[in-house]
Amino acid sequence: MKIAVLGTGAGARAHIAKLAALGHDVHVGTRDPQATLARTGPDMMGTPPFKEFLAEHPGICLHTFGDAAAQGELVINGIDGHNAVAALTAIADQLAGKTLIDYAVPFIYQHQTEHPWPTPWGVMPKLDPCDTDSLGEQIQRALPRTKVVKSFVTQEQTTVVNPQAIGGGDHTMFVAGEDADAKQQATDLLKSYGWTDILDLGPLACARGMEMYAHMHSAIGFGLGQHFGGHFGIKVVR
Amino acid sequence: MKIAVLGTGAGARAHIAKLAALGHDVHVGTRDPQATLARTGPDMMGTPPFKEFLAEHPGICLHTFGDAAAQGELVINGIDGHNAVAALTAIADQLAGKTLIDYAVPFIYQHQTEHPWPTPWGVMPKLDPCDTDSLGEQIQRALPRTKVVKSFVTQEQTTVVNPQAIGGGDHTMFVAGEDADAKQQATDLLKSYGWTDILDLGPLACARGMEMYAHMHSAIGFGLGQHFGGHFGIKVVR
Repeated sequence: MKIAVLGTGAGARAHIAKLAALGHDVHVGTRDPQATLARTGPDMMGTPPFKEFLAEHPGICLHTFGDAAAQGELVINGIDGHNAVAALTAIADQLAGKTLIDYAVPFIYQHQTEHPWPTPWGVMPKLDPCDTDSLGEQIQRALPRTKVVKSFVTQEQTTVVNPQAIGGGDHTMFVAGEDADAKQQATDLLKSYGWTDILDLGPLACARGMEMYAHMHSAIGFGLGQHFGGHFGIKVVR
Repeated sequence: MKIAVLGTGAGARAHIAKLAALGHDVHVGTRDPQATLARTGPDMMGTPPFKEFLAEHPGICLHTFGDAAAQGELVINGIDGHNAVAALTAIADQLAGKTLIDYAVPFIYQHQTEHPWPTPWGVMPKLDPCDTDSLGEQIQRALPRTKVVKSFVTQEQTTVVNPQAIGGGDHTMFVAGEDADAKQQATDLLKSYGWTDILDLGPLACARGMEMYAHMHSAIGFGLGQHFGGHFGIKVVR
């Protein structure tokens, strides 16, 4: 299947590598392909240059966001939360009629504000939107012709694509969205990743809880002594 | 042990009944004992009159918040989140030097605002504080002589006191706070309730994630078709 992944960060790379290994035709989108390929050092999150990743994964095509979205029959959004709505709105035509799986957390980082707020983790990003709205809903409102599914967001992206690495895979992944067929596409993709317990939370408003879980996820990682390592999952026991 | 439970709602009653069954000397606090005993119909949450509960649980003493707190060697806060800081600040002297386990969610309900925000659940309460602060931290700042532990809040109170009712008890409870001895007291109480997997998340700032998990908890309940029934738990798989 032709799948577009928008973004070149660590999370996007986990999906790109897994999708390629599963035999999909993967099209990667970035804001400025030339700039992405020109980078020689790690980015501010410590991620190595994307061209090193491409060298290890031949056959991956790098495009602009719009060209990648145009290629994909299914699109995964890995654009950072702070920029996602604007970047996706600019390519609304290329995303029309398609399923967009969004895993972005609407974090605002300290370098993006003059008013940091300390936590035990140093300076914890702040969520915006939060509580009475979600990034998933904002994206859906910005893209009324696209079927938005919120998923992946409650799990580190490296273990989203390899759930068996934790507890033999016996933990829970969530989907939310307005379109049943789009949620089924996301569910099928998750099954191909190895997930066995996939819970449909219902409408996209459930993205609020999924995104706000980010703080609990960080706290659990902190309690386990992993400081954002994220090598755990949560199982809904019922 | 002499344990004070502040509040007479459904959650408080679950703790009161369990603590009495475990042989503790339980002292219940309410704003106005005469008014609490005078009520003859269900409250706005549908909870039956407290005097019916007392008739079924002889030996429980009903006091003002301050008198109950003065009696307790350990205190559990079940005052609703909207009123908790003010009510607890008024009895700071009676709480000085004690461990206070707080399980309140800082929800603002629709009848407390002129601007409701619809969700699939009808009108979902809004959290205040949220994201960069928590009710647990607010209470700790208001009561510097008290050792505040946030716990219980990620689980319906009826199953907090009976974890074995779900998956044989194989799910996770969390504690957070600044004082190790106080967290040990909370952990010992949880073990006496039947919990076997109790994760110390660390400092009280982790109450942010615990309180914000309320929306995810509601979403999971919605996904399971239980609409706030809450008969599930979450297990941290690691």
